[in-house]
Amino acid sequence: MIVVLAGGVGAARFLEGVVQVAPPATVTAIVNTGDDFELHGLTIAPDLDIVTCTLAGVIDPLQGWGIAEDTTACLEWLGRLGGPTWFKLGDRDLALHIRRTALLRAGHTLSSVADAFRRALGVAVRILPMSDDPAPTHILTDAGEFHFEEYLVRRRAQDSVRGVRLHAAGAAAPAPGVLEAIAGATAVLIAPSNPVVSVGPILALPGLRETLRATPAPVVAVSPIVGGAAIKGPAVPLMRAVGMEASALGVARAYADLLDGIVIDAVDADLAPAIEALGLRVAVTDTIMRGPREKAHLARVALALGGVNG
Amino acid sequence: MIVVLAGGVGAARFLEGVVQVAPPATVTAIVNTGDDFELHGLTIAPDLDIVTCTLAGVIDPLQGWGIAEDTTACLEWLGRLGGPTWFKLGDRDLALHIRRTALLRAGHTLSSVADAFRRALGVAVRILPMSDDPAPTHILTDAGEFHFEEYLVRRRAQDSVRGVRLHAAGAAAPAPGVLEAIAGATAVLIAPSNPVVSVGPILALPGLRETLRATPAPVVAVSPIVGGAAIKGPAVPLMRAVGMEASALGVARAYADLLDGIVIDAVDADLAPAIEALGLRVAVTDTIMRGPREKAHLARVALALGGVNG
Repeated sequence: MIVVLAGGVGAARFLEGVVQVAPPATVTAIVNTGDDFELHGLTIAPDLDIVTCTLAGVIDPLQGWGIAEDTTACLEWLGRLGGPTWFKLGDRDLALHIRRTALLRAGHTLSSVADAFRRALGVAVRILPMSDDPAPTHILTDAGEFHFEEYLVRRRAQDSVRGVRLHAAGAAAPAPGVLEAIAGATAVLIAPSNPVVSVGPILALPGLRETLRATPAPVVAVSPIVGGAAIKGPAVPLMRAVGMEASALGVARAYADLLDGIVIDAVDADLAPAIEALGLRVAVTDTIMRGPREKAHLARVALALGGVNG
Repeated sequence: MIVVLAGGVGAARFLEGVVQVAPPATVTAIVNTGDDFELHGLTIAPDLDIVTCTLAGVIDPLQGWGIAEDTTACLEWLGRLGGPTWFKLGDRDLALHIRRTALLRAGHTLSSVADAFRRALGVAVRILPMSDDPAPTHILTDAGEFHFEEYLVRRRAQDSVRGVRLHAAGAAAPAPGVLEAIAGATAVLIAPSNPVVSVGPILALPGLRETLRATPAPVVAVSPIVGGAAIKGPAVPLMRAVGMEASALGVARAYADLLDGIVIDAVDADLAPAIEALGLRVAVTDTIMRGPREKAHLARVALALGGVNG
């Protein structure tokens, strides 16, 4: 079993590579739920939906989120009725939020909903939310404290960030199967996701870091920082705000206690000695996932660095 | 002030006539909520939406319900995710249910939501739900007890009806303003709606019949039964199941204790003497509302029968 710790778009694309080099049914994605929030009375789970819909082949390929060829008739009318419209919700997309909310209200867990959704959409990869408990990620800024999606989408990541509050570090428990999947894995891959707000919440859950350190499986990360910049999203200001260096070396340091190796981009080759000095193996390759071939290559390199043949 | 007791499509079309002959801001619609139910975790209020969207000019003109030119992308995906699809919900339509549910969950009353919606859609007529409390109408059939919409839509009104259970006759209270509107009206019109499941729930609320009997305003009904048949919907079997004769005379009898007059169709002219024998005034005219002119004519005849010039 291959376990992938996953955020949103970067992780979903990486998983598209993993399922090319390993049987999908042997892959488990443990997905960040720190971005989950409520809007229009509906429970939105951005990373779960991005991972599920990407692996189902129904994602909007340009955005990397939302459903392909979706329309926004409902959102326009929600706005007409005085509802908030800052978070784009497509008509197809809304079905996931409506159905999830109905099932959660009827007493189902987020895990069981995530499993039902991936099966309904024909996804063989096992998809586990990191937790069934609410564990929102808040961003502390000069303008106040905001839920991550509010900071990112509504305020367009324009506020000066002072810190990050991970509620995953509080009362939330890992979802059933999360610790077991890591403990029983043949390899654990940390997807090229934001280390602060995508992987950070997963690692903040009680027992997660300990289980990652204790697992006999190799633990290999892929750096989402290339040449000091993020492929996508506000990783740089968020890393700086929590005292990380915004570089592949900073990523390696953030995970050093639980990592066996890290894949970094060729443009960051000069950082390899410093990362190796942390006691980590390093693979240097092109990490930009332009298409299916690059995705599969990156997955193969990461698995090989862990001593697993993909 | 003109008060109209209203069900769904027939009432909405009649109200389109009323607002042609009286200033819309002087009209109050008291709308049946016995059809309201929950689906996909959302609170659906069919008659409120039909009345509001008809008066807003956004109703699907052929169906008489749903929003014009609506699409069903969300419903298709709800089905894909295992949700029920027997009740057609358009993408625009869903916005009303999502927003209503969110506002109700946030502590708003159905009255305040109905008022916010009609204002958002530019409707000058005051729209009051009959009650802010749940008051579902159930149909007792040979196949079991069903919510009215389940009987009507899911089971296509095919079951043999034994009776009707109006929860409006239970703990539900009239919404704020309902009794006051009737008591202070210059005329009360009972729209050509199903007397059992549209007007019946309104009349079943505690204090409603008493207030209608006590109001100094004339109370005038328009028969929804023409030549022994309903213009729309299963009025005939439902009337028979509760012991009413399925005719304009049956309608007159059902309301006789609170009515001053009733408008019946020309095809039912022979029933006029029997209705007059109940102590009611009768107006005989063409009651089929083909277009705006017929709607205005019907409203004018009903008001004139009450001694009010429209």
